[in-house]
Amino acid sequence: MMITLTLEQVLDIVQGFVHETQRNIGCEGELKGINTLMAASADEISFLANVKYKHALDASKAGWILVSPQVYESGLGEQKNWIKVQDPYLAFAQLQRVFHPQHIGKGRHHASAVIAESSMLAANVDIAARVVIAEGVVIGNGTVIHAGVIIGQNVSIGEQCLIHPNVVIADGTILKNRVILQAGAVIGSDGFGYAWTGREHLKIPQTGRVILEDDVEIGANTCVDRGALGDTVIGQGVKLDNLIQVGHNVEIGALCIMASQTGISGSSKFGMGCQVGGQVGVAGHVSIGNGVKIAAKTGVISDLDAGGTYAGIPAMPHKTWLKVSALILRLPEVWKKLRTR
Amino acid sequence: MMITLTLEQVLDIVQGFVHETQRNIGCEGELKGINTLMAASADEISFLANVKYKHALDASKAGWILVSPQVYESGLGEQKNWIKVQDPYLAFAQLQRVFHPQHIGKGRHHASAVIAESSMLAANVDIAARVVIAEGVVIGNGTVIHAGVIIGQNVSIGEQCLIHPNVVIADGTILKNRVILQAGAVIGSDGFGYAWTGREHLKIPQTGRVILEDDVEIGANTCVDRGALGDTVIGQGVKLDNLIQVGHNVEIGALCIMASQTGISGSSKFGMGCQVGGQVGVAGHVSIGNGVKIAAKTGVISDLDAGGTYAGIPAMPHKTWLKVSALILRLPEVWKKLRTR
Amino acid sequence: MMITLTLEQVLDIVQGFVHETQRNIGCEGELKGINTLMAASADEISFLANVKYKHALDASKAGWILVSPQVYESGLGEQKNWIKVQDPYLAFAQLQRVFHPQHIGKGRHHASAVIAESSMLAANVDIAARVVIAEGVVIGNGTVIHAGVIIGQNVSIGEQCLIHPNVVIADGTILKNRVILQAGAVIGSDGFGYAWTGREHLKIPQTGRVILEDDVEIGANTCVDRGALGDTVIGQGVKLDNLIQVGHNVEIGALCIMASQTGISGSSKFGMGCQVGGQVGVAGHVSIGNGVKIAAKTGVISDLDAGGTYAGIPAMPHKTWLKVSALILRLPEVWKKLRTR
Repeated sequence: MMITLTLEQVLDIVQGFVHETQRNIGCEGELKGINTLMAASADEISFLANVKYKHALDASKAGWILVSPQVYESGLGEQKNWIKVQDPYLAFAQLQRVFHPQHIGKGRHHASAVIAESSMLAANVDIAARVVIAEGVVIGNGTVIHAGVIIGQNVSIGEQCLIHPNVVIADGTILKNRVILQAGAVIGSDGFGYAWTGREHLKIPQTGRVILEDDVEIGANTCVDRGALGDTVIGQGVKLDNLIQVGHNVEIGALCIMASQTGISGSSKFGMGCQVGGQVGVAGHVSIGNGVKIAAKTGVISDLDAGGTYAGIPAMPHKTWLKVSALILRLPEVWKKLRTR
Repeated sequence: MMITLTLEQVLDIVQGFVHETQRNIGCEGELKGINTLMAASADEISFLANVKYKHALDASKAGWILVSPQVYESGLGEQKNWIKVQDPYLAFAQLQRVFHPQHIGKGRHHASAVIAESSMLAANVDIAARVVIAEGVVIGNGTVIHAGVIIGQNVSIGEQCLIHPNVVIADGTILKNRVILQAGAVIGSDGFGYAWTGREHLKIPQTGRVILEDDVEIGANTCVDRGALGDTVIGQGVKLDNLIQVGHNVEIGALCIMASQTGISGSSKFGMGCQVGGQVGVAGHVSIGNGVKIAAKTGVISDLDAGGTYAGIPAMPHKTWLKVSALILRLPEVWKKLRTR
Repeated sequence: MMITLTLEQVLDIVQGFVHETQRNIGCEGELKGINTLMAASADEISFLANVKYKHALDASKAGWILVSPQVYESGLGEQKNWIKVQDPYLAFAQLQRVFHPQHIGKGRHHASAVIAESSMLAANVDIAARVVIAEGVVIGNGTVIHAGVIIGQNVSIGEQCLIHPNVVIADGTILKNRVILQAGAVIGSDGFGYAWTGREHLKIPQTGRVILEDDVEIGANTCVDRGALGDTVIGQGVKLDNLIQVGHNVEIGALCIMASQTGISGSSKFGMGCQVGGQVGVAGHVSIGNGVKIAAKTGVISDLDAGGTYAGIPAMPHKTWLKVSALILRLPEVWKKLRTR
C-alpha cells in the first residue's frame, strides 16, 4: 500500500505556507514521498535543512521543497516551488512519518513462535517466527515482536512497542508504551558485580530490573544491565544509539539522547535532556545535571553541573578544552622558546 | 520457592558477630532477602559498604545491617541492629548467593530445540526453546542453555555453566566448568586476519579455538575471536564486562577483570589478576605483567610492567598522568607567561 | 575430509623456490597443514613472517618453512628446509585457504527453517536450523546461511556468501557476492535520526538501504545502519572488525580496513584503501581521502586529506602527534623551568 499526499495535506501536516501565485509552480498532483534535493523526482517533496546545500536548490527536480522562512524570503520563495516552514528538518520528519507509518500489530502469531500459556497477549499483538515468550509475560495492544526475539519470565511490554529481530529481554524487565528496540539489543543482562574474596571474584546475583519508560528507543546491540538491587531506569523519550553500554542501577533522565558506543558505569545518574556524543565514558556513581552536553570521546570521572558543555579526558568545560587542545598543538613552540632563552 | 534465613544462619554464612544483648534489637523472625539501606524492610538485611552512606544507617528500616568492624565499634554497634563482618560488601555477596542461587540444570529439553544426534548431553542439562546444538557437542552436568543459543560443531561445555539467550558458541570452542555467558555474546568468531596481495585483503582462514577456563564470565554482546593458529585463552576466574573485544590468540591470565567496551588486539597477553577499566584499547602483540591496573580509556601500545598502574594515551604511569593532566589544564597560563616575558 | 599437499603443490600455490639439493632436507611426504614455528610437526609447513622470531627457525620441527628472500639468502637457505617466497605471510594465507576452503552451499535446507514462499533461493544454498527468511528474499548459488539468522523482506544476497549464526539482515538490504558476516552482526538497523519538536525527539523513519559490495566482511556484533534517505554503502573488499558502528548514509570506499570498536557517524565518506585502527571515532558529514591511515583511538572531527596518517583527539598529522605527545610528558619540566626563572 502506497500513501500519497496532496499539497493541501502536506501544508496541513507541516504547517507550511505557499503563496496563491505559487500553486501552479510546483507539483499539482499527488506527492509520493520525500527525498534528498538531488534524488527527489517531480512527484516527491524535498527539504533544505542545512544552508550549506543551498546551491542544490535550483538543480533539484523535487515537486516541492521545504525551506526556512529566511531562505524563503531571501530567495524569492514566491517565485519558486518552495514551501515555507518554521523548521524544514522537523517538517521532513513529520512527512516521513506520514509516508512511512510505524507497523502496528494486527494479532498475527507465527506458528513457529513458542508462547508460554501463562503469558497474556492483547488482541492485536504480532508475534513473528521463532519468537520465544516465557511464563508470565504481558504484552499490550498493537505491539510487534519480530523474529528471533527472546522474552524472559514476567516481562511486561506496553502498547505499540516495536521489538526488532533477535533482541533479548531478560526476566522481569518492564517496557512502557511505544518503546522501540533495534536488533540484537540486550535488555536486562546481569550487571558487572563481584566481591573479592581474597581468592576469587565472587559473582553477586543481580536481582534488580530494567525499566524503559514511554517512547524510549534503544539501538542495535546496545546492552542495558539490570540493577544489582533496585532498578536501572531509562527515562521517558530517551534515545540510545547502537553499541551503548548502560551499567547496573544507572538512571537516565527523560529526553536524554546518546550517540553510539558510549558507556555509562554503574549507579551513575543523568538529569533530563542531556546530549551525549559517541564513545563517551562515564565512571560509576557520577551525577550529571539537567541539560548537560558532552562531546564525543569525553571521559567523565566526576559530577557535572547542569546546563554545562564538557569535553576531554578527564571532562572539562568545553571552552577550556578548546583552548587547551589548541595550545597542545603549540607545545613544540613552547618548548623551543624555553630552550632558546 | 522463596528462601528465608534465620539470624543464626546469616551469621554463619557471613561469619558475622552480634552481641548477646543485641539479639532482640533486630529482626527475630525469618529474613527474606537483602536490600539497600533505603529500600530494605524489617524482614530484610542491608549493608553499609561505603562509609559515604553512613548517614542512611539510622533511617534504614532493615531488620539487620552488615557493617565493618570500624563502623560497628565507632557506632556503638552493640546498641543497634548491626552485624559486624570483616567486609560488608563480601557479606552482601555471600547472602545474595544464598537467597538467589544460580539455576542448575535438571534435564529438561524443550521440544523446539534442535539437538544433533551425535551430541552428548549429561543427564541434568537444561535446553530451552529454539536452541541449536550441532554435531559432536558435549555438555556437562547441571549446565543450563537458554533460548536461542547456537552451539557449533564439537563444542565442549563443562558442568554448571549458564548460557544466556541468543549466545553464539562457534565450532570447536571449549568452555570449562561454571562458565557464564551473558546474552548475545559471540565466542569463536573469526579473528581479523588478512594478507595483502597487492590487489585485495586475502582472508586467512582462522583455524584456532577459544578456550574459556573454569569460572569465566563473559558479558552481553562481548566478542572473543578464535585463534588464527593456536588458541585464544581466557584464564580461570576472568570476568569480562559487556561489549568487549578480544582478538585472536589473546591470552588473559587468571582472575583478570575488565570493564565494558575495552578492546584487546590480536596476540596480546595479560598476566594474572589485572584490573582493566572501560574503553581501554590494547595494541597487538603487547605483553602486560601480573597485577597491572589500567585506568578507563587508556591506550596501551607497548609492554607494561607487572604491578604498575597506568593511564593515558599512550599509556604512562598513573602518577605521571595525574601530574601531566593537571598541567595540561594550566597550558593557558604557561602560554601567557611565555608571551609576557 | 582432510586435504594434503605435496611439496610440488605447495611450491605451485605460493610460487616458492626450493633448490634441487634441498629436496631431501624437508618433508618428502604429504603435508597436512600449516602451523606456527613452535607448534608445527614434521608433516606441517610453517612460516617466518616477522624477523623478530628468527631465533625460532632452528628449533622448529616443521617439515618446510616459508621464508623471505632476505632470510633465505642470509641464512643459507639451500642447506635448510626453507622455501623462498616473496611474502611469507601471504604464502601462509594462500596455503591456509587451500587446507581450509570456505564452506560452499550444497542445497541443504534444515526442516526447522522458516522460508517464505515468495523467496527465491538458488539450487545450492544451505539454510541451517531456525533460519527465518521473509517474503521476497533472493539468495545466490553457493551461499551458506547459518543457524538463527533472520533475513528481512526483499533482501538480496549474492553468490558464495557466508552468514554466521544469529546475524540480522533487515528489510531491503543488498549483499553482493562473497560477502561474509560474522555472528551477531546487524545490517540495516535504523539510523539514529530524530527531529526536536520542542517537546520530544521525533523519530524519523529510516527508509534507505544498506549495500554491501563484493567481498565485504563484517565482524561479530558490528552494526551497519540503513540510510535515512538513500543508502549506506560499504565498498568492494572492505573488511570491518567486530563491534564497529557504521551510521546512516556512510560510504566506505573499496578496500578500506577498520579495526574493532571504531565508530563512523552519519553521512561521513571514506575514500579507497583507508586503514583505520581500533576505537577510532569519526564525526558526521566528514570526508576522508583515499589511502588515509588513522591510528587507534583517534577522534576525527573534520575532513582528512588523501594519503595522510593521523592520530590524536582531535585528529592531527601523526608526526605532529608523536612530537606533541612526547612534549606532553615533559610538561612538568616546562612548568618547573617557567617557575624557576
